[in-house]
Parts: sequence; C-alpha cells; structure tokens
Amino acid sequence: KLLQLKAQLGGDDGKHQFVLKTAKETLTGKYGEDSKLIYDLKDQGGELLSLRYDLTVPFARYLAMNKITNIKRYHIAKVYRRDNPAMTRGRYREFYQCDFDIAGQYDAMIPDAECLKIVHEILSELDLGDFRIKVNDRRILDGMFAVCGVPDDKFRTICSTVDKLDKLPWEEVKKEMVNEKGLSEEAADQIGEYVSMQGGMDLAERLLQDQKMSQSKQACAGLSDIKLLFSYLQLFQVTDKVVFDLSLARGLDYYTGIIYEAVLTQAGVAPVTTDAQNGAPSEESVSVGSVAGGGRYDGLVGMFDPKGRKVPCVGVSIGIERVFSIMEQKAEASAEKVRTTEVQVMVASAQKNLLEEKLKLITELWNAGIKAEVMYKKNPKLLSQLQHCEESGIPLVAILGEQELKDGVVKLRVVATREEDDLRRTFQDNRYWTLV
Amino acid sequence: KLLQLKAQLGGDDGKHQFVLKTAKETLTGKYGEDSKLIYDLKDQGGELLSLRYDLTVPFARYLAMNKITNIKRYHIAKVYRRDNPAMTRGRYREFYQCDFDIAGQYDAMIPDAECLKIVHEILSELDLGDFRIKVNDRRILDGMFAVCGVPDDKFRTICSTVDKLDKLPWEEVKKEMVNEKGLSEEAADQIGEYVSMQGGMDLAERLLQDQKMSQSKQACAGLSDIKLLFSYLQLFQVTDKVVFDLSLARGLDYYTGIIYEAVLTQAGVAPVTTDAQNGAPSEESVSVGSVAGGGRYDGLVGMFDPKGRKVPCVGVSIGIERVFSIMEQKAEASAEKVRTTEVQVMVASAQKNLLEEKLKLITELWNAGIKAEVMYKKNPKLLSQLQHCEESGIPLVAILGEQELKDGVVKLRVVATREEDDLRRTFQDNRYWTLV
Repeated sequence: KLLQLKAQLGGDDGKHQFVLKTAKETLTGKYGEDSKLIYDLKDQGGELLSLRYDLTVPFARYLAMNKITNIKRYHIAKVYRRDNPAMTRGRYREFYQCDFDIAGQYDAMIPDAECLKIVHEILSELDLGDFRIKVNDRRILDGMFAVCGVPDDKFRTICSTVDKLDKLPWEEVKKEMVNEKGLSEEAADQIGEYVSMQGGMDLAERLLQDQKMSQSKQACAGLSDIKLLFSYLQLFQVTDKVVFDLSLARGLDYYTGIIYEAVLTQAGVAPVTTDAQNGAPSEESVSVGSVAGGGRYDGLVGMFDPKGRKVPCVGVSIGIERVFSIMEQKAEASAEKVRTTEVQVMVASAQKNLLEEKLKLITELWNAGIKAEVMYKKNPKLLSQLQHCEESGIPLVAILGEQELKDGVVKLRVVATREEDDLRRTFQDNRYWTLV
Repeated sequence: KLLQLKAQLGGDDGKHQFVLKTAKETLTGKYGEDSKLIYDLKDQGGELLSLRYDLTVPFARYLAMNKITNIKRYHIAKVYRRDNPAMTRGRYREFYQCDFDIAGQYDAMIPDAECLKIVHEILSELDLGDFRIKVNDRRILDGMFAVCGVPDDKFRTICSTVDKLDKLPWEEVKKEMVNEKGLSEEAADQIGEYVSMQGGMDLAERLLQDQKMSQSKQACAGLSDIKLLFSYLQLFQVTDKVVFDLSLARGLDYYTGIIYEAVLTQAGVAPVTTDAQNGAPSEESVSVGSVAGGGRYDGLVGMFDPKGRKVPCVGVSIGIERVFSIMEQKAEASAEKVRTTEVQVMVASAQKNLLEEKLKLITELWNAGIKAEVMYKKNPKLLSQLQHCEESGIPLVAILGEQELKDGVVKLRVVATREEDDLRRTFQDNRYWTLV
C-alpha cells in the first residue's frame, strides 16, 4: 500500500498539484497509538481523506515532493485531533500549532541544540513562570528496553506505557506493563529503576559506564549524543532548565533520536481541574503539562520519497493555544487589561455636524501613519466616544470643535489623566503633531 | 431545514462548541450560482460537511452564535473552491483570503467608505501598478432590472449574467440573457444601455433624474447612498481610483447594498495567458482581474440567529495569493532579489576547531537581540559560509579566528563590499558592537 502511495507521489510533479490532499494513507503508521485521534473525512470522489494531525508529517511530505534537502522554517497553522477537549487548559479538537524545524545533513546535535535554545528563549521571553525542558533519546529508550529484557515486538507498546509516567505514578504504569502488555515483572522493575533517573551530562557519563546499559550499542550512541548536546547547551547558556530524564518517551512513532518536552513547573498558574473519573484533583493542578515538544525524525522524509532518499530533520512544536490560555489566565488574575486594539488615537467631537471635519482629520492621521479611529455615527455623544476609549484602551482622544477648527488646532486629551493640550495640525520633523 | 438548523444553533452555547463544523446546510443558499464550487466532505459520524468557501459566512455565523453586535476585525485564512485552478494567475482550489469587516448598526456609508479607503491604501502601498475600484449597489441593479422589465424571479440569474461583463463582450452577455435565460430582447437592450455607464457622484445625480430609473424606490435609495459614499471618499482622498460602474454585479447572493471590486489595470503585469478553448489571448493578458472585492450584507447574520436579529455588516476580501503572485512576477521581471530570511549576520570562521567559539559568539548575539546564523557543521569552509550569505542575502559576516580571539575582537565583513572592520565584543550604549 505504501509502495502504491509512493509510486503515486512520484508521478506527481509537486509544482502542478492543486490540492494537497491529506489522504488517510498519508497519516497511517506515523502516530503509533495516537492514530485513533485522526479525523477522517470523505470527499466527493469517494477517496478517504483526513484532517492533518500535526504539522510534522505534512512538512516531511512537502520536502520529499519538492526534493528539498535543506531548510529551516517555522509554520503556524491548525491541526485536528479526535481527543477529549479540555477547554480550561486550552485543549481543543481544532487548534493551532507552531512548529519550527531544521532539515538537512549536518554535524551531530548542532541543530538539535538550537531547537532547545529556541524553546528556552520563547518560554523565558513569554514569562510564563518556571519551566523544565526534559530531554531523552529514542535510542536510549530502545537500548534500555533491550537490556531490560523487553521483546523486540513490544518496544513501541511499552514505550507508550512509559509515556504515561507524566500523568500516572510508577505503580500504575508497572501494572499496565505487566497485566495488560504481558511484560515480566523483573523486566518492568529494571525499567522502573532507569526511568526514575534524572540529571545532566553527568548522568549520561554514568550510564555510559553502567554495566547493563553499556551493553547496548544503540543506548551508547544515544548517550554520547546527549553528552555532546549538553556541551552545546552550555555554550548556549540554557542548561539551567534542561534535564536529561529517562522517563520521557513521547508517543509518536516517527522519532529516531533525541526527544524533548517542555513543561511549566510553577503551581497555581492553571486552574485546579479535577479528574473526571474519580473527582480527585488531577496532576494538572500542579503541572499545567506540556507546552512544547519535539525531537529528531530522520526517517520520515524518506517514507514519502519514491527513491527513499532520507533528509534528517529535527523540530519542535509549541502548543501556542495552551500558552495563550495560560497568558490569559495570568492577565485575568492580575486584573491587567489586555488591549484588543492597537488604535492610538480616537478622533472625537463634542459638537454636532462635524463628521466631515473628523473624516478630514482622520485622513491626515492615517496618511501620517498614525493608528486612528472615528465612530461611525454622524453625531455621537462625547461621553460615548470617551467611554469607547476607556473600554478598548485607546490612550488618546483628538477633540475637534468650532474653536479648534478656527484656530487650526486639535485638542489632544490623554484618556488616563484627562490632561489636554492644543496641538497644531502640521507635519514637521517627521512628526504630525506640534505643540502650540 | 433552515429552521431546524437555526433551532440547533440556538441550542448551542458558542463558548462550549469544540469544533465549528461547516455543515453543508450552513453554506447552502449563500453563494447563488457559485454554490457548485463548495467542497463537500463526510465526517465519521456520517454528517454532510463542507470546507468553507469564504470567510464571510463563517464570520456572520460567529457573530450570531456569540451574540456580537459590534466588531471590526481582519482575518487571514484558507478557503476552498472546486473551481478550475489557474496557477499562473495565482488561482488555486485551496487558497488564502484576507478579510476585513465592520459589523454594527451605524450611520449610512461611513464604514462602507472606510472599507474602500483600506482597499485603496493596501493597493497603493503594495505598489502593484495602477488600479480601479468599481462601485455599484445591489439595490441599483435590482431597481434597474425592475424598470427594464425583468420579471422578479429572474433578478438573480440575470444578475449572474451581468457579472460576466468583465470577461465577455456585451453581445455574448446579451445572447445568454435572451437565448438561455429567456429575457425579451427589448429588456436586454435597456439593461445594455445602463450597464455601459461609468462615472462618479455626477453619474449618481444624473440617474436620480433619469425618467425610468427614478421610478424605482430601491434604485433611488441606492443612488442616494452612492452620492453620500462619494462625499466621504472625497474626504478620504481616494476618489481618483473609484468608479461608479453599473456593470459591476458580483455573483454572491448575500449582498444587500453597496458592492465593489478592485482590479489592476496596468497591462503586462500578468503573463500572457491564452484562452483554453480557442487559443487566443484572453482578457486576462490585459487585466489581471479582480484582486479585492466586497460589499454590504445586512441580512446574513440574521439568518444564523434563532430570533432572526440582524447585524448590518460591510466588508472586503483581499485576494492575497493573487497579489503575492503579481508581486513575485514583478520581482522576477526586475531581477530584484527577494530575501527569504531576516538574518542580519552570519557567524563564520576560516580556521578549524572553532565551533565552540562560534556558538559562544552567536549566543552573545542572540542575547543582544541580533538575528544571527551559524552553519551546522564543525568545520565548514569559509567559502561555503560566504556563498551561503550571498545566496540568502545575509548582509554581514562575523569572522572569528585565533588572532581575533586573542585580541577579544570580531572581524565584521560587509558581504556586498567586502569591507572589513575589527569590532570589540562588548555591550555598550545599548549596542552590541563597538569599533576598535
């Protein structure tokens, strides 16, 4: 089926495709156990179509179809998931994602470190409170599973169970491994020991000496890269927030190397939500959960290329709607007013029949590059004009009256302080206003 | 069916809707003969769903569902049409639209004039060449049809035929009216006289005195508003580009008052395309066609409100993909290089083993808010670093070497002129660089 798809894609010239259809086949086999969240649709021709689940798979397909081997780009767009929405935490079925990816054959860990630097910069600049960026490597997880005695065909499903450690206690996770997934208790206990480990470059060094872990070539490759990564992160001055955490698994199948996830750690930012099933406060009341995540996916582009040519990629996805909902909550909590307009000045009048003069003035202001607004009424009351400014946070009012028109000036009023000054309507020294 | 839908919408609380589904019913009866272009889909539950055709109907539905009676907003997003794509002219089946709308009960023609001012400003600023904004009014068209003897039930279909006047000569349009739509030749000829008229406020005044036209109350209301509109457009200083044109019809059913459309008039901007049917150069080789359009739609919000409450609206839609394709063609024609990155400086080195030092420097630059890039290689060649700058238009290179490191400086090179200066790496007076 995939071969059929590849042949089909190969026949298409990317430039002459009119509609990029997200066919169900395109998405199948990329998301592991999350596949059930894909929205399926049918188009008029009876083809099976789906809404895109993330921006990563479409990005990989775009690279393959257009034979792009080097690119660095960001992309903000909507994705769709048949998940249980949680409005208060900014989780919807249709939501925006913001992705940043670096594609190309480069030296190890340099673009990976830049992705983490970017996450660090965004979360610091947005001032969302304290955060941690957990880092792990798919190869370390696979190596760990191997040396702990997990059968090869159970790696993915055990990995999904490990992924639940951010929501469930170890005992629950272990129960799922043993009772549901049929893992031996011994193997589960060995995994349990590893996944409780957190640290930095030192932990990677220690695990490289670990008797069991060092038996896996895969794990050693991953651990060496973690060391290299941390050396670059030191130069980027971001190691204060980055933790090498062996419990980080991330559910998606397409990761091949480094993986990471950023979580806000400050309590009390998110509203206290309760677990729907037992009414008890859930984990979410302490941690608001993941706000960014990503990793390396070196095999994905090749799956869409007719000749299987690989383009190594690493990227990060910012959950901007979650970030926005946290920012909104913070703004509400601080009674800080969020402006919904950038208008700098309102053109107003106290007297009647001045619409024409107001439209003349606003034209001058617009032509001078000043953001201005006027009420769409012939004779609005001055009070309603001033109220509108207060409601929408417009800081200045330019008031016109018969006297001002006679004098060739405008009364400029600061809404907050009610200070007023007469200003001359002339363009001088690159400024529109001049004090009389 | 519509009543059912309304009841259903009324039961929904806008705030708790998780997915705004564009059900086929939602879109039906809004687009007149264009309805055939709507993309239909089926979701997993078997509901009939469609992709949105424009941003206006979803906007109206949003206002009704959230009981919003006053808003001014812009919106850039994708819409879908089962139309014949024309790549060279920037026409696709999936494309971005950029809409600006003003909703609310206001005094006549003030928000309408602001919409035209905005179209004028956008097209002037983008420097796309000369343009015209054609203006007409749905009520003038309907009044004209009435006084020319068009039966009531043929208004819409005759209006669609008039809409083809921007692509077909009058003779063809008349033929369609008479042969296909069964209009009398006499009525068609009378329409033909009116739709050849173009002018400004003077034309509106003349038609208000026109023996036939003045018999229609509707037409007179429209003509008076055109007069008022032009008086505001004079104050906004945009009458140089606006034409009152009785042949402008616009196909969509939802317009109730003023309608307008902006066309670029400069020949030679678009590539010469040929008509697929006869191989002759089509109209499009002279005019690139419409790049913006809109009008007043006072009834649309009420159709989605359970109690039928109306919110008058006026808006404009910018065809940004067409605009972009024209800008790209202009850039290509002028051999002007379009930068795809905003990077100001590339961190480079001529010597080997300086990756760590380069990462330290780029961290300093990033922390100082300077847009910087480094190659993701341990030891790239200086030539390939400089070539990358030339290809992507990066204006500056910061070159590090053993000597520079010893002296605590960076060699800053201007790519275009190859001038070089040694700069000290210190933060002083809000500037990162200091000349040695």
